[in-house]
Formats: sequence, structure tokens, C-alpha cells
Amino acid sequence: MKTYKIALLPGDGIGRDVTAAAWAVLEKAASLNGFSLDATSYPWSCDYYLENGSMMPADGIETLRSFDAILLGAVGWPRKVPDSVSLHGLLLPIRKAFVQYANIRPHRLLPGVQGPLRADGFDILCIRENTEGEYSGAGGRVHQGTDNEVAVETSIFTRTGVERILRFGFEQARTRRGKLASVTKSNAQKYSMVFWDEITQRLSAEYSDVEVTSYHIDAMAARMVMAPDSLDVVVASNLFGDILTDLGAAIQGGLGFAASANINPDRSAPSMFEPVHGSAPDIAHLGIANPIAAIWSGAMMLEHLGEAAAAARVMAAIEATTARGIGAIPGKDKTDAITASVLSALG
Amino acid sequence: MKTYKIALLPGDGIGRDVTAAAWAVLEKAASLNGFSLDATSYPWSCDYYLENGSMMPADGIETLRSFDAILLGAVGWPRKVPDSVSLHGLLLPIRKAFVQYANIRPHRLLPGVQGPLRADGFDILCIRENTEGEYSGAGGRVHQGTDNEVAVETSIFTRTGVERILRFGFEQARTRRGKLASVTKSNAQKYSMVFWDEITQRLSAEYSDVEVTSYHIDAMAARMVMAPDSLDVVVASNLFGDILTDLGAAIQGGLGFAASANINPDRSAPSMFEPVHGSAPDIAHLGIANPIAAIWSGAMMLEHLGEAAAAARVMAAIEATTARGIGAIPGKDKTDAITASVLSALG
Ligand SMILES: CC(C)[C@H](C(=O)O)[C@@H](O)C(=O)O
Ligand SMILES: CC(C)[C@H](C(=O)O)[C@@H](O)C(=O)O
Repeated sequence: MKTYKIALLPGDGIGRDVTAAAWAVLEKAASLNGFSLDATSYPWSCDYYLENGSMMPADGIETLRSFDAILLGAVGWPRKVPDSVSLHGLLLPIRKAFVQYANIRPHRLLPGVQGPLRADGFDILCIRENTEGEYSGAGGRVHQGTDNEVAVETSIFTRTGVERILRFGFEQARTRRGKLASVTKSNAQKYSMVFWDEITQRLSAEYSDVEVTSYHIDAMAARMVMAPDSLDVVVASNLFGDILTDLGAAIQGGLGFAASANINPDRSAPSMFEPVHGSAPDIAHLGIANPIAAIWSGAMMLEHLGEAAAAARVMAAIEATTARGIGAIPGKDKTDAITASVLSALG
Repeated sequence: MKTYKIALLPGDGIGRDVTAAAWAVLEKAASLNGFSLDATSYPWSCDYYLENGSMMPADGIETLRSFDAILLGAVGWPRKVPDSVSLHGLLLPIRKAFVQYANIRPHRLLPGVQGPLRADGFDILCIRENTEGEYSGAGGRVHQGTDNEVAVETSIFTRTGVERILRFGFEQARTRRGKLASVTKSNAQKYSMVFWDEITQRLSAEYSDVEVTSYHIDAMAARMVMAPDSLDVVVASNLFGDILTDLGAAIQGGLGFAASANINPDRSAPSMFEPVHGSAPDIAHLGIANPIAAIWSGAMMLEHLGEAAAAARVMAAIEATTARGIGAIPGKDKTDAITASVLSALG
């Protein structure tokens, strides 16, 4: 029987609750579809930091490298460890070390879920650059503490980085409705964003079957709310994609429904799958976190592993569950009840 | 009779249509309230650029300096002049030269307007830093045209710049519901945004009567859609404010309703009032642009000039108009019909 080695990183807070739920669903889907998942769980988290002085061991990245995929819950617990330490010590290094340059987040309404918009017929795939740009971590402060202090933060875009994420976007558009929206702010950021626009322009000749449109980030944020059904694939930089995917989560009814995949398209290292939501310390371990985003992320993992039938089975089970109203209203159902419903809908 | 000297910059496209409409309303409101407005109109625009090789004359800024306020329509017509030239040649230099560091944009639903959200009870005042940050214009490109090309764009935040916009935000919160949301992304941008958070933190002690909360930009974008009624005053950097105010325009029914003021709070130079929308070349001069955003911006100008009663009169006339369904549905009514209705509602 085919076996996939999966690293589980439940992380902090509700990350643990939803990872356990997702894992139960994924294991059952695997056995129904004739393959197996072999999990190794690592306790890397803010608690781990408090005991060990680091978010993961020095050889953490090397340990993860041998897995077929990583399933992550959530990282961060600001009252224990500042986010700037926890995220830069665990989540962000994995995305960068494994060249998971494409962060994919699907935004559509699950059946039975009422979103905040009057509109309901949309199906957007956001693709966020995940390794450079505005989150490069380059910058500094001078005259610190004085009236004269200046802080700078430098966005760094490489041709390699921009071209590969745009190509990924064009390829995704080909598998969907053939429309790509590229998001920049070239009227105000004339180095980085003009560069991105130029590369989009040049690639569009190569992908002449894809209809590509450039939008400014402000106009795109408005469009996702005013006319979400006009969008298919949306590709954006690290920061812009970060903002648009939280907005995407909002219009799909909330963070409880927003799944994501950090993909290494070359498969030179494992990809990582995680719900968009954070660790939500205030509701940690109360058994009330919605596991749907984590389960959906797990389905994306199965798809990535080549187990499309099992992925479809999990998605159908999620949809059957929300269609019955279970897990469809934020805060209404318990984690266990939602998980049990998805498990039983698997067949 | 008290007379205010106003510089009119209709600019491009529908900027001209809506400025004419707003001016008619403002003049009538002035005369009804016993003061007068003395307009001087300048044709600075993309057409001006094509004739003269610059968006405004070399002494344009000095010319504007002697006015009590500036009323601007919209700048840009990409097929004539690239945005990177037109905006950096007219709109952005004015904001910077006159230290209009506070860009204020109110977001609420006018009566009779149906927004894209199911929610309708919100009243948000966004305050955007308008002179530095992510739109500082600092950056460059190396190895241009090669595979190895790198583009950098540097955000520059000064203590003076951050502190003054935050103080402005705290002051505004005091005149409203006493709540200030400060928006950053300090978990991923650890120089600029941590700096902003520190200053927010320090000022909060001084404004202990204001309830201040820090949000990440991604979470704030989601919140504006999921729970807009939880927000009062929102203060953000140049880029984040740009994005949030287009989102604010979207939730209030579209750019046809979004007004703005570029304020120099020290009154050391004129402030500038402009609708958030752009020049919309595709509908220019067809007589179908909605002038409400421009008229509302004009009301903000009257308020700034100290003519609060006239400002309130204009707002009441706008509200009476949309309440009757006129100008309330994007694309339905002509510019003239909407303007006539506001004029007659002035009394
Ligand atoms: C936690 C944070 C650093 C992270 C990010 O911005 O990448 C998160 O917001 C996300 O969207 O995955
Ligand atoms: C046109 C553009 C440069 C401008 C800005 O980003 O400042 C506009 O989007 C705005 O919001 O006023």
C-alpha cells in the first residue's frame, strides 16, 4: 500500500485542535481510497520556545525535508512569545527554506454558509508570492529613540521570484476559467511594481490563451467586495496577497473556512498546508474552533500528493456537512461535532 | 461678506464633470449661508502635459499656495500620459509640498444607497498618512533586463511623520466615539511597522480617554467586511490607508460615494479636497459621472474653512437626494439630474 510520510506541526492554540480534527479525516479518506498516511508530529510552538529557547531545534528544517508534505495548524501566542519571534522562528523559515513560493488560497462559499456580501456566486483562486517582496525582512532604524528617528523597510523583488509566481498564476488560470488578474500599485511604487507589471506584460505574450488584466491593489480590494464574480485567478505579491486572502476569507464567511497551501511547484522540497486562521489563543482548547479550514487544507495536501480522488472525497464530505448547516455558522457547532459529521459523510 | 479663495483643479476625465457639479452646489450653499467663494480654475491635466511637457507650470505649487483651499477633480489618463508621470507631476507633489499629511475619508452608507454588504450600520473615518511611508518613491533596479535583475522599493517612516498622523487620529477619535484602530503589519515588517506600533503604544498613555487597538492590515481588511460597525476611527500608513479607503468606498456602495480631504492640520498651507475616484476616461464627458463624492468632498472643504453650517446644509441636501433614490444607484442618473436635485434640496 502506498504510504505518504507527513510531518504534523500542530503549533499553538487552536492549531492543535484543528490539526487533530483534520488528521482524523485525512486518515479515514486515505484508507477508503487505498493508501496510507504516516504521521510524525513535532511539538514546535511557543511552549516549545519557552522550554528550549527556540521555536524549533537547529536541525528542524533538515528534519522536515525528508517528508512528503507538512500539515501545520497555526503558529503564535503573543502573550507568551512576540509574533516577530514565533513567526520568524517557525512558519516563515519553512516557507523560505523549502522554496514554497506559491501560496494558494481558494475563496468560494461552501453550501449553507452565508457570507457578509449580498453576492454569493464567486470562485476565486488567490495566489500569493510567498518568499520575497515586502516581507523580505530587509530594513533598519537610525537615530533610534530620538525625535529624528527614521525606520526603513525594503521590499526586494527578484526577476526569478516574480517570473516564477506569475508563471504559476498563468498555469493555474489555464486549468480554470482562463482569466488572470495581476495586482500591483505601479502608479505609486515605481520600482518594484513597475518591474512586476513589465514581467506580467512580457509573459502575457507567451500565455496568449490566458486573458490577463492588471489591477491596482486598492481597486482590487474594492472589486473583491463589489464584483467578486468577475475574478478567476488573482496573483499578487507577498503583502498584497496576504491582504487579499484575508479579504477573500472574509467574503467566504470568515477565517474558519479559509484553506491554504504553501507550494513548492518544483517539488524539490516538501510543500506545507495550513488554514489561513491564526492560533486564536482566546478560544484555544475549548473545543469550539471550526476545523473546516484545516480539513480543506488537508484536501489540498491530498491533491498535491496526487490523490485527487481522496481530495475530492474530503471536499464532498465538507460540503455535505456545511450543506446540512453543520459548521456553517461561526461559533455554533463544536469542533468534535463538525469533525464527526465530515467523517461520517466520507462514506 | 467673507470670501474664500478656492483653486479649482478639475484635472482629467470625469474630474471635470464632477468638479463643475460640486462647484455649483458649493456656490449656492455659500450664498445661502452668507459668505462667498471666489474660484480660480487651472487646466493642469494630462492634456496640459501633452501641450506643455509638464503636468503643471514650474511655479504651480507657488501659485496654489496663496489659496484658502484646493478643490480637485481627478488626475490621470493612462492612454495619454502614464500614471507614473501624471500623478507624480500633479497630485502627489501637492499633497507633499503642502504637508497635507492627513488624508481623511469617511465611510458610511448614504440613505437610499444599498451597499454590497448585508450589514448597513457602520460609520468609519479612515485617516491615511499621506506624505511618506510606502509611497516615498525611494528605490531602484539593478542588472536591469537580465535574469539577475532585482528591484527594490523602500518604505521610509519618520518619527515626525508617524507621530503627527497618529496624534491626528487620536484627536479625531475624541470628537467621535473615542475608538482608534491603528493598522500595521508588525509580525512581518519588523522595522517600519514595529516602529509605528511603538509610537502608537507611547501616545496611548497621553490619550488615555481614547480606546486604541492595533490590528494587522490583513485582519483589518477582513474586519471592514465582517464587522464594519465595530470600527470608529482607523489610522493607517500611506499604502494601508490607500487600500482600506478603497475598501471603505466599496462597502459604502462604490467610488461614486467616497469623499476625501487632504488636510494640512497646521494650516501652514492650503488643504485639498477630492473625490476618491479616478478620472474614469471611459465615461468622461458623457454626463453620467456621479458627482456625489465630489460634492461631499466640497462639504468637507466648507467644514475645514470653518463654515460648519454650510457644510451641514450640503450634507443634508446630498442625503435628501439619495434618500429619494436620486444618485443612489450607480449608473442610473445623469450628473445634471443629481446636481439639480442637490441644488434644489439646499433650500
Ligand atoms: C502570520 C503572518 C506572518 C502570516 C503572513 O502574513 O504570511 C499570515 O498572516 C498569513 O497570511 O499566513
Ligand atoms: C492615484 C493614486 C496615486 C492615489 C493614491 O494612491 O494616493 C489614489 O489611489 C488615491 O487613493 O488617492
